[in-house]
Amino acid sequence: MKQIPQPTIERACSIYNLLLDFERENIKLVSSAELSSLIGVTAAVIRKDLSLIGISGVSGARYSAKKLKQDLEIRLALGIKRKSCVVGIGKLGSAILDFGLFNDYGFEIAAGFDSNMNTIETKKTVVKLYPAFQMAEVVRREKIELAFLCVPAKAAQFSVDHLIDGGIRGILNFTPFLVKSKSEDVFISKIDVLKEVRTLSALISASTEQDSNSRRPHNGTSL
Amino acid sequence: MKQIPQPTIERACSIYNLLLDFERENIKLVSSAELSSLIGVTAAVIRKDLSLIGISGVSGARYSAKKLKQDLEIRLALGIKRKSCVVGIGKLGSAILDFGLFNDYGFEIAAGFDSNMNTIETKKTVVKLYPAFQMAEVVRREKIELAFLCVPAKAAQFSVDHLIDGGIRGILNFTPFLVKSKSEDVFISKIDVLKEVRTLSALISASTEQDSNSRRPHNGTSL
Repeated sequence: MKQIPQPTIERACSIYNLLLDFERENIKLVSSAELSSLIGVTAAVIRKDLSLIGISGVSGARYSAKKLKQDLEIRLALGIKRKSCVVGIGKLGSAILDFGLFNDYGFEIAAGFDSNMNTIETKKTVVKLYPAFQMAEVVRREKIELAFLCVPAKAAQFSVDHLIDGGIRGILNFTPFLVKSKSEDVFISKIDVLKEVRTLSALISASTEQDSNSRRPHNGTSL
Repeated sequence: MKQIPQPTIERACSIYNLLLDFERENIKLVSSAELSSLIGVTAAVIRKDLSLIGISGVSGARYSAKKLKQDLEIRLALGIKRKSCVVGIGKLGSAILDFGLFNDYGFEIAAGFDSNMNTIETKKTVVKLYPAFQMAEVVRREKIELAFLCVPAKAAQFSVDHLIDGGIRGILNFTPFLVKSKSEDVFISKIDVLKEVRTLSALISASTEQDSNSRRPHNGTSL
Protein backbone atom coordinates (compact mmCIF):
# COMPACT_ATOMS: atom_id res chain seq x y z
CA MET A 1 0.00 0.00 0.00
CA LYS A 2 1.41 3.36 -0.94
CA GLN A 3 -0.05 6.85 -1.18
CA ILE A 4 -3.63 5.82 -0.60
CA PRO A 5 -5.80 8.93 -0.25
CA GLN A 6 -7.40 9.44 3.16
CA PRO A 7 -11.01 9.53 1.77
CA THR A 8 -10.38 6.11 0.18
CA ILE A 9 -9.36 4.65 3.53
CA GLU A 10 -12.35 6.25 5.25
CA ARG A 11 -14.75 4.85 2.63
CA ALA A 12 -13.08 1.43 2.83
CA CYS A 13 -13.76 1.45 6.60
CA SER A 14 -17.40 2.35 5.87
CA ILE A 15 -17.58 -0.59 3.43
CA TYR A 16 -16.10 -2.83 6.12
CA ASN A 17 -18.81 -1.67 8.50
CA LEU A 18 -21.55 -2.44 5.97
CA LEU A 19 -20.05 -5.90 5.49
CA LEU A 20 -20.34 -6.51 9.25
CA ASP A 21 -24.07 -5.72 8.89
CA PHE A 22 -24.34 -8.00 5.85
CA GLU A 23 -22.67 -10.81 7.79
CA ARG A 24 -25.27 -10.51 10.54
CA GLU A 25 -28.04 -10.49 7.93
CA ASN A 26 -26.44 -13.47 6.18
CA ILE A 27 -26.01 -11.65 2.84
CA LYS A 28 -23.42 -13.54 0.75
CA LEU A 29 -22.86 -11.42 -2.38
CA VAL A 30 -22.61 -7.66 -2.85
CA SER A 31 -22.08 -5.44 -5.90
CA SER A 32 -20.21 -2.15 -6.09
CA ALA A 33 -23.57 -0.58 -7.08
CA GLU A 34 -25.18 -1.79 -3.83
CA LEU A 35 -22.24 -0.55 -1.76
CA SER A 36 -22.25 2.77 -3.60
CA SER A 37 -25.91 3.50 -2.89
CA LEU A 38 -25.40 2.78 0.83
CA ILE A 39 -22.24 4.90 1.05
CA GLY A 40 -23.39 7.74 -1.19
CA VAL A 41 -20.74 7.78 -3.92
CA THR A 42 -20.79 6.29 -7.43
CA ALA A 43 -20.04 2.59 -8.09
CA ALA A 44 -16.98 3.69 -10.07
CA VAL A 45 -15.58 5.41 -6.94
CA ILE A 46 -16.14 2.22 -4.90
CA ARG A 47 -14.32 0.10 -7.51
CA LYS A 48 -11.47 2.64 -7.68
CA ASP A 49 -11.21 2.69 -3.84
CA LEU A 50 -11.02 -1.09 -3.62
CA SER A 51 -8.52 -1.23 -6.47
CA LEU A 52 -6.28 1.38 -4.76
CA ILE A 53 -6.31 -0.79 -1.63
CA GLY A 54 -5.30 -3.77 -3.75
CA ILE A 55 -8.65 -5.55 -4.01
CA SER A 56 -9.72 -6.25 -7.58
CA GLY A 57 -13.30 -6.79 -8.72
CA VAL A 58 -14.87 -7.55 -12.05
CA SER A 59 -17.18 -4.80 -13.32
CA GLY A 60 -20.79 -5.96 -13.09
CA ALA A 61 -19.88 -9.05 -11.03
CA ARG A 62 -20.60 -9.24 -7.31
CA TYR A 63 -18.05 -9.55 -4.54
CA SER A 64 -18.21 -12.36 -2.01
CA ALA A 65 -19.16 -10.40 1.13
CA LYS A 66 -17.10 -12.70 3.36
CA LYS A 67 -13.97 -12.59 1.18
CA LEU A 68 -14.24 -8.80 0.74
CA LYS A 69 -14.51 -8.36 4.51
CA GLN A 70 -11.44 -10.57 5.10
CA ASP A 71 -9.47 -8.74 2.38
CA LEU A 72 -10.32 -5.36 3.90
CA GLU A 73 -9.28 -6.59 7.37
CA ILE A 74 -5.87 -7.50 5.98
CA ARG A 75 -5.36 -4.54 3.66
CA LEU A 76 -6.44 -2.00 6.27
CA ALA A 77 -4.58 -3.87 9.03
CA LEU A 78 -7.78 -3.88 11.12
CA GLY A 79 -6.56 -6.72 13.34
CA ILE A 80 -3.66 -4.67 14.69
CA LYS A 81 -3.59 -3.95 18.44
CA ARG A 82 -2.92 -0.41 19.62
CA LYS A 83 -2.63 1.04 23.10
CA SER A 84 -4.96 3.91 23.92
CA CYS A 85 -5.49 6.45 26.70
CA VAL A 86 -8.31 8.59 28.07
CA VAL A 87 -7.69 12.31 28.57
CA GLY A 88 -10.02 13.98 31.06
CA ILE A 89 -11.54 11.74 33.75
CA GLY A 90 -14.89 13.49 34.19
CA LYS A 91 -18.22 11.76 33.63
CA LEU A 92 -17.57 10.87 30.00
CA GLY A 93 -13.92 9.90 30.49
CA SER A 94 -14.83 7.67 33.45
CA ALA A 95 -17.56 6.02 31.39
CA ILE A 96 -15.05 5.25 28.63
CA LEU A 97 -12.52 3.88 31.16
CA ASP A 98 -15.17 1.63 32.71
CA PHE A 99 -16.79 0.66 29.44
CA GLY A 100 -14.34 -2.03 28.40
CA LEU A 101 -15.44 -2.03 24.76
CA PHE A 102 -12.14 -0.70 23.45
CA ASN A 103 -10.15 -3.37 25.29
CA ASP A 104 -12.34 -6.07 23.73
CA TYR A 105 -11.51 -4.83 20.22
CA GLY A 106 -7.74 -4.55 20.57
CA PHE A 107 -7.46 -0.92 21.68
CA GLU A 108 -6.34 -1.55 25.27
CA ILE A 109 -6.64 1.52 27.48
CA ALA A 110 -3.23 1.86 29.14
CA ALA A 111 -3.50 5.20 30.95
CA GLY A 112 -5.82 7.99 32.03
CA PHE A 113 -4.92 11.67 32.46
CA ASP A 114 -6.49 14.49 34.42
CA SER A 115 -5.34 17.92 35.56
CA ASN A 116 -7.04 17.55 38.93
CA MET A 117 -4.68 15.85 41.44
CA ASN A 118 -7.63 15.04 43.68
CA THR A 119 -9.29 13.05 40.87
CA ILE A 120 -6.06 11.15 40.22
CA GLU A 121 -5.57 10.26 43.88
CA THR A 122 -9.13 9.33 44.81
CA LYS A 123 -10.78 7.90 41.67
CA LYS A 124 -11.01 4.11 41.65
CA THR A 125 -10.12 2.87 38.16
CA VAL A 126 -8.65 -0.30 36.65
CA VAL A 127 -6.20 1.81 34.65
CA LYS A 128 -3.41 3.92 36.14
CA LEU A 129 -4.15 7.66 36.23
CA TYR A 130 -1.49 10.35 35.73
CA PRO A 131 -1.45 14.13 36.10
CA ALA A 132 -1.94 16.00 32.81
CA PHE A 133 1.58 17.47 32.81
CA GLN A 134 3.04 13.94 32.42
CA MET A 135 0.98 13.27 29.27
CA ALA A 136 3.73 13.51 26.63
CA GLU A 137 6.17 11.49 28.77
CA VAL A 138 3.72 8.64 29.56
CA VAL A 139 2.38 8.44 25.98
CA ARG A 140 5.95 8.09 24.72
CA ARG A 141 7.05 5.58 27.39
CA GLU A 142 3.97 3.36 27.11
CA LYS A 143 3.90 3.56 23.28
CA ILE A 144 0.30 4.78 23.32
CA GLU A 145 -1.02 5.46 19.80
CA LEU A 146 -4.66 6.48 20.34
CA ALA A 147 -6.31 8.98 22.67
CA PHE A 148 -9.93 9.51 23.65
CA LEU A 149 -10.29 13.22 24.32
CA CYS A 150 -12.92 14.07 26.98
CA VAL A 151 -11.73 17.36 28.49
CA PRO A 152 -13.44 20.74 29.01
CA ALA A 153 -13.09 23.48 26.34
CA LYS A 154 -10.14 25.28 27.87
CA ALA A 155 -8.02 22.09 28.08
CA ALA A 156 -8.84 20.68 24.61
CA GLN A 157 -6.14 22.20 22.38
CA PHE A 158 -3.53 22.08 25.17
CA SER A 159 -4.14 18.34 25.58
CA VAL A 160 -3.91 17.69 21.83
CA ASP A 161 -0.57 19.53 21.65
CA HIS A 162 0.86 17.47 24.53
CA LEU A 163 -0.42 14.17 23.10
CA ILE A 164 1.26 15.00 19.78
CA ASP A 165 4.49 15.90 21.60
CA GLY A 166 4.38 12.40 23.09
CA GLY A 167 4.01 10.82 19.64
CA ILE A 168 0.27 10.04 19.59
CA ARG A 169 -1.02 8.95 16.15
CA GLY A 170 -4.82 9.21 16.41
CA ILE A 171 -7.25 11.23 18.53
CA LEU A 172 -10.97 10.61 18.88
CA ASN A 173 -12.41 13.93 19.99
CA PHE A 174 -15.53 13.44 22.15
CA THR A 175 -15.66 17.12 23.11
CA PRO A 176 -17.93 19.52 21.20
CA PHE A 177 -14.85 21.66 20.51
CA LEU A 178 -12.76 21.88 17.36
CA VAL A 179 -9.11 20.94 17.93
CA LYS A 180 -6.27 21.16 15.42
CA SER A 181 -3.31 18.92 14.78
CA LYS A 182 0.06 20.57 14.32
CA SER A 183 1.32 17.39 12.61
CA GLU A 184 0.15 15.85 9.32
CA ASP A 185 0.83 12.38 10.71
CA VAL A 186 -1.75 12.69 13.46
CA PHE A 187 -5.37 11.92 12.62
CA ILE A 188 -8.22 13.49 14.54
CA SER A 189 -11.86 12.58 14.24
CA LYS A 190 -14.82 13.86 16.17
CA ILE A 191 -17.85 12.26 17.77
CA ASP A 192 -20.40 14.88 18.66
CA VAL A 193 -23.33 13.23 20.40
CA LEU A 194 -25.08 16.52 21.15
CA LYS A 195 -24.94 17.49 17.49
CA GLU A 196 -26.63 14.21 16.54
CA VAL A 197 -29.39 14.69 19.13
CA ARG A 198 -29.87 18.30 18.03
CA THR A 199 -30.20 17.18 14.39
CA LEU A 200 -32.81 14.55 15.32
CA SER A 201 -34.70 17.22 17.22
CA ALA A 202 -34.63 19.61 14.23
CA LEU A 203 -35.85 16.84 11.90
CA ILE A 204 -38.72 16.09 14.28
CA SER A 205 -39.67 19.79 14.47
CA ALA A 206 -39.60 20.17 10.68
CA SER A 207 -41.71 17.08 10.04
CA THR A 208 -44.17 18.07 12.78
CA GLU A 209 -44.62 21.50 11.25
CA GLN A 210 -45.15 19.96 7.85
CA ASP A 211 -47.93 17.80 9.34
CA SER A 212 -49.68 20.60 11.14
CA ASN A 213 -48.77 24.19 10.50
CA SER A 214 -50.75 25.30 13.53
CA ARG A 215 -48.32 23.62 15.94
CA ARG A 216 -45.15 25.70 16.07
CA PRO A 217 -42.79 25.20 19.00
CA HIS A 218 -41.32 28.70 18.57
CA ASN A 219 -42.31 32.04 17.20
CA GLY A 220 -40.92 31.82 13.68
CA THR A 221 -39.91 35.46 13.23
CA SER A 222 -36.27 36.38 12.91
CA LEU A 223 -34.51 38.04 15.85
CA MET B 1 -41.31 26.05 7.20
CA LYS B 2 -42.76 23.56 4.78
CA GLN B 3 -41.35 20.62 2.82
CA ILE B 4 -37.75 21.24 3.75
CA PRO B 5 -35.58 18.35 2.50
CA GLN B 6 -33.90 16.27 5.22
CA PRO B 7 -30.33 16.89 3.88
CA THR B 8 -30.99 20.65 4.14
CA ILE B 9 -31.91 20.31 7.81
CA GLU B 10 -28.89 18.09 8.47
CA ARG B 11 -26.54 20.58 6.81
CA ALA B 12 -28.19 23.46 8.67
CA CYS B 13 -27.42 21.63 11.93
CA SER B 14 -23.80 21.22 10.79
CA ILE B 15 -23.66 24.96 10.07
CA TYR B 16 -25.06 25.62 13.54
CA ASN B 17 -22.30 23.46 15.00
CA LEU B 18 -19.63 25.38 13.10
CA LEU B 19 -21.11 28.63 14.38
CA LEU B 20 -20.72 27.35 17.96
CA ASP B 21 -17.00 26.85 17.17
CA PHE B 22 -16.80 30.32 15.60
CA GLU B 23 -18.40 31.83 18.69
CA ARG B 24 -15.72 30.25 20.90
CA GLU B 25 -13.02 31.52 18.53
CA ASN B 26 -14.66 34.97 18.48
CA ILE B 27 -15.18 34.98 14.69
CA LYS B 28 -17.80 37.63 13.85
CA LEU B 29 -18.46 37.30 10.09
CA VAL B 30 -18.75 34.25 7.86
CA SER B 31 -19.37 33.78 4.12
CA SER B 32 -21.27 30.97 2.41
CA ALA B 33 -17.94 30.09 0.70
CA GLU B 34 -16.24 29.58 4.10
CA LEU B 35 -19.14 27.48 5.39
CA SER B 36 -19.20 25.46 2.15
CA SER B 37 -15.53 24.49 2.35
CA LEU B 38 -15.93 23.33 5.96
CA ILE B 39 -19.10 21.34 5.21
CA GLY B 40 -18.04 19.93 1.86
CA VAL B 41 -20.75 21.22 -0.48
CA THR B 42 -20.80 24.24 -2.82
CA ALA B 43 -21.52 27.76 -1.61
CA ALA B 44 -24.65 27.76 -3.79
CA VAL B 45 -25.97 24.74 -1.85
CA ILE B 46 -25.35 26.54 1.45
CA ARG B 47 -27.19 29.65 0.24
CA LYS B 48 -30.07 27.51 -1.06
CA ASP B 49 -30.24 25.59 2.27
CA LEU B 50 -30.39 28.79 4.29
CA SER B 51 -32.96 30.28 1.93
CA LEU B 52 -35.17 27.16 2.22
CA ILE B 53 -35.05 27.52 6.00
CA GLY B 54 -36.08 31.15 5.62
CA ILE B 55 -32.75 32.87 6.18
CA SER B 56 -31.77 35.24 3.39
CA GLY B 57 -28.21 36.27 2.57
CA VAL B 58 -26.73 38.58 -0.02
CA SER B 59 -24.50 36.81 -2.54
CA GLY B 60 -20.86 37.70 -1.85
CA ALA B 61 -21.69 39.41 1.45
CA ARG B 62 -20.89 37.75 4.77
CA TYR B 63 -23.36 36.67 7.41
CA SER B 64 -23.08 37.89 10.99
CA ALA B 65 -22.07 34.66 12.77
CA LYS B 66 -24.07 35.59 15.87
CA LYS B 67 -27.24 36.53 13.98
CA LEU B 68 -27.03 33.43 11.76
CA LYS B 69 -26.67 31.23 14.86
CA GLN B 70 -29.70 32.87 16.49
CA ASP B 71 -31.74 32.57 13.28
CA LEU B 72 -30.88 28.87 12.96
CA GLU B 73 -31.83 28.28 16.61
CA ILE B 74 -35.26 29.73 15.91
CA ARG B 75 -35.87 28.26 12.46
CA LEU B 76 -34.73 24.76 13.49
CA ALA B 77 -36.50 25.04 16.87
CA LEU B 78 -33.27 24.06 18.62
CA GLY B 79 -34.42 25.48 21.96
CA ILE B 80 -37.29 23.01 22.20
CA LYS B 81 -37.27 20.57 25.14
CA ARG B 82 -37.93 16.88 24.48
CA LYS B 83 -38.17 13.93 26.84
CA SER B 84 -35.82 11.04 26.11
CA CYS B 85 -35.24 7.48 27.31
CA VAL B 86 -32.39 4.97 27.42
CA VAL B 87 -33.02 1.47 26.08
CA GLY B 88 -30.62 -1.17 27.39
CA ILE B 89 -29.04 -0.50 30.79
CA GLY B 90 -25.69 -2.24 30.25
CA LYS B 91 -22.36 -0.43 30.54
CA LEU B 92 -23.08 2.10 27.80
CA GLY B 93 -26.73 2.69 28.77
CA SER B 94 -25.75 3.22 32.43
CA ALA B 95 -23.05 5.68 31.36
CA ILE B 96 -25.61 7.67 29.37
CA LEU B 97 -28.08 7.62 32.29
CA ASP B 98 -25.40 8.86 34.69
CA PHE B 99 -23.83 11.29 32.25
CA GLY B 100 -26.30 14.17 32.71
CA LEU B 101 -25.30 15.92 29.49
CA PHE B 102 -28.61 15.35 27.76
CA ASN B 103 -30.55 16.79 30.70
CA ASP B 104 -28.39 19.92 30.59
CA TYR B 105 -29.29 20.52 26.95
CA GLY B 106 -33.05 20.09 27.21
CA PHE B 107 -33.36 16.37 26.43
CA GLU B 108 -34.38 15.19 29.90
CA ILE B 109 -34.04 11.43 30.35
CA ALA B 110 -37.42 10.33 31.72
CA ALA B 111 -37.11 6.51 31.67
CA GLY B 112 -34.78 3.56 31.22
CA PHE B 113 -35.70 0.13 29.84
CA ASP B 114 -34.09 -3.28 30.17
CA SER B 115 -35.24 -6.85 29.52
CA ASN B 116 -33.45 -8.11 32.64
CA MET B 117 -35.74 -7.85 35.70
CA ASN B 118 -32.73 -8.19 38.01
CA THR B 119 -31.12 -5.09 36.44
CA ILE B 120 -34.37 -3.15 36.86
CA GLU B 121 -34.78 -4.12 40.51
CA THR B 122 -31.19 -3.74 41.71
CA LYS B 123 -29.60 -0.98 39.59
CA LYS B 124 -29.35 2.36 41.38
CA THR B 125 -30.33 5.13 38.96
CA VAL B 126 -31.83 8.61 39.21
CA VAL B 127 -34.32 7.72 36.49
CA LYS B 128 -37.08 5.13 36.86
CA LEU B 129 -36.36 1.81 35.12
CA TYR B 130 -39.05 -0.30 33.42
CA PRO B 131 -39.10 -3.80 31.92
CA ALA B 132 -38.69 -3.86 28.14
CA PHE B 133 -42.21 -5.15 27.48
CA GLN B 134 -43.64 -1.88 28.89
CA MET B 135 -41.67 0.24 26.41
CA ALA B 136 -44.49 1.26 24.04
CA GLU B 137 -46.85 1.98 26.95
CA VAL B 138 -44.38 4.11 28.95
CA VAL B 139 -43.12 6.03 25.89
CA ARG B 140 -46.73 6.93 25.03
CA ARG B 141 -47.75 7.81 28.61
CA GLU B 142 -44.66 9.90 29.37
CA LYS B 143 -44.69 11.60 25.93
CA ILE B 144 -41.08 10.54 25.28
CA GLU B 145 -39.88 11.66 21.85
CA LEU B 146 -36.22 10.53 21.74
CA ALA B 147 -34.51 7.22 22.54
CA PHE B 148 -30.87 6.30 23.07
CA LEU B 149 -30.53 2.72 21.86
CA CYS B 150 -27.83 0.73 23.71
CA VAL B 151 -29.00 -2.90 23.47
CA PRO B 152 -27.29 -6.09 22.24
CA ALA B 153 -27.72 -7.21 18.58
CA LYS B 154 -30.66 -9.52 19.13
CA ALA B 155 -32.73 -6.85 20.89
CA ALA B 156 -32.01 -3.95 18.52
CA GLN B 157 -34.76 -4.23 15.90
CA PHE B 158 -37.29 -5.48 18.47
CA SER B 159 -36.65 -2.39 20.62
CA VAL B 160 -36.97 -0.03 17.66
CA ASP B 161 -40.33 -1.56 16.68
CA HIS B 162 -41.68 -1.16 20.23
CA LEU B 163 -40.41 2.41 20.54
CA ILE B 164 -42.17 3.28 17.27
CA ASP B 165 -45.37 1.59 18.49
CA GLY B 166 -45.20 3.93 21.49
CA GLY B 167 -44.91 6.99 19.23
CA ILE B 168 -41.18 7.74 19.48
CA ARG B 169 -39.97 10.35 16.97
CA GLY B 170 -36.16 10.04 16.97
CA ILE B 171 -33.68 7.26 17.82
CA LEU B 172 -29.96 7.65 18.34
CA ASN B 173 -28.52 4.21 17.68
CA PHE B 174 -25.34 3.62 19.73
CA THR B 175 -25.18 -0.07 18.79
CA PRO B 176 -22.99 -1.22 15.91
CA PHE B 177 -26.11 -2.77 14.35
CA LEU B 178 -28.25 -1.44 11.54
CA VAL B 179 -31.88 -0.93 12.54
CA LYS B 180 -34.77 0.06 10.30
CA SER B 181 -37.73 2.30 10.90
CA LYS B 182 -41.11 1.07 9.77
CA SER B 183 -42.40 4.65 9.84
CA GLU B 184 -41.30 7.59 7.69
CA ASP B 185 -41.96 9.96 10.58
CA VAL B 186 -39.30 8.39 12.80
CA PHE B 187 -35.71 9.52 12.36
CA ILE B 188 -32.82 7.22 13.21
CA SER B 189 -29.17 8.18 13.30
CA LYS B 190 -26.19 6.13 14.31
CA ILE B 191 -23.12 6.78 16.44
CA ASP B 192 -20.57 4.05 15.90
CA VAL B 193 -17.59 4.68 18.14
CA LEU B 194 -15.83 1.45 17.17
CA LYS B 195 -16.07 2.38 13.51
CA GLU B 196 -14.38 5.72 14.23
CA VAL B 197 -11.56 4.07 16.20
CA ARG B 198 -11.13 1.45 13.48
CA THR B 199 -10.89 4.18 10.83
CA LEU B 200 -8.24 6.05 12.85
CA SER B 201 -6.32 2.79 13.18
CA ALA B 202 -6.47 2.15 9.40
CA LEU B 203 -5.30 5.71 8.68
CA ILE B 204 -2.36 5.23 11.06
CA SER B 205 -1.43 1.92 9.41
CA ALA B 206 -1.59 3.40 5.91
CA SER B 207 0.53 6.44 6.80
CA THR B 208 3.03 4.27 8.69
CA GLU B 209 3.47 1.99 5.66
CA GLN B 210 3.93 5.01 3.44
CA ASP B 211 6.73 6.20 5.75
CA SER B 212 8.52 2.88 5.95
CA ASN B 213 7.55 0.03 3.69
CA SER B 214 9.58 -2.38 5.80
CA ARG B 215 7.19 -2.09 8.74
CA ARG B 216 4.03 -3.99 7.89
CA PRO B 217 1.73 -4.99 10.74
CA HIS B 218 0.22 -7.82 8.70
CA ASN B 219 1.17 -10.05 5.82
CA GLY B 220 -0.33 -8.16 2.89
CA THR B 221 -1.37 -11.12 0.77
CA SER B 222 -5.02 -11.79 0.13
CA LEU B 223 -6.72 -14.68 1.91
